Amino acid sequence: MKPKLSLITLGVSDLERSRHFYEGLGWSPYRWDPESDVVFFELGGVMLALYGRDNLAKDIGSGVAIRPGVTSVTLAHNEASQDDVDRAFAEFVSVGATPVKTPQPTEWGGYSGYVSDPDGHLWEVAFNPFSDWT
Amino acid sequence: MKPKLSLITLGVSDLERSRHFYEGLGWSPYRWDPESDVVFFELGGVMLALYGRDNLAKDIGSGVAIRPGVTSVTLAHNEASQDDVDRAFAEFVSVGATPVKTPQPTEWGGYSGYVSDPDGHLWEVAFNPFSDWT
Repeated sequence: MKPKLSLITLGVSDLERSRHFYEGLGWSPYRWDPESDVVFFELGGVMLALYGRDNLAKDIGSGVAIRPGVTSVTLAHNEASQDDVDRAFAEFVSVGATPVKTPQPTEWGGYSGYVSDPDGHLWEVAFNPFSDWT
Repeated sequence: MKPKLSLITLGVSDLERSRHFYEGLGWSPYRWDPESDVVFFELGGVMLALYGRDNLAKDIGSGVAIRPGVTSVTLAHNEASQDDVDRAFAEFVSVGATPVKTPQPTEWGGYSGYVSDPDGHLWEVAFNPFSDWT
């Protein structure tokens, strides 16, 4: 199978609140239709979708729990320097993200912090001096 | 802030088991170092990382639950046709994924199914006739 991740979907409790949160970062919805119950953002090679948690649970089918604030997945937004990480972290917080870990040097030689979005989805904001992932 | 998702990290309970699972799909670890406690896969524009759940919790810091099988995030692997979705779904299952929803027509006019990986992370396998995301 071709190695490809096409889309990440975040189950959210309030679609408008979450849309405003991500728009606050300066990200624009992709072909947004106000009538739609899903919002997409094009994040450089992969799409991020916001979708009501109940709708997502229904789409997946019964038996799968979709609970807020409990996850074993983190998303990372990389920046090109420590200063850029500090700025991006502050920008997340300025639009309502909860600070989880202040940006700091990591064991692996990078620099990163964590915030959570309105539903508790974790975003790492990181600088990795050993890669060009940004 | 530049709209960019750099990396997704899945917290896993058994790194080797999870690596074998994703390798089973024909995906090759990126610059894999057997001594490392993290495994990366390059998935077409975004990196997928597998990382021990305890390590991930430690990295995030205290107070954040990292529990298996409970999530409000889904990952999607898109294919170019219904037949390709059926094949990819079968391939996931053949390497040990748990079938969650058999591929079927969706309300939005696409075709999709869901499987879960060894830790319960949900993958949608989908064909979207209205987009070229694959």
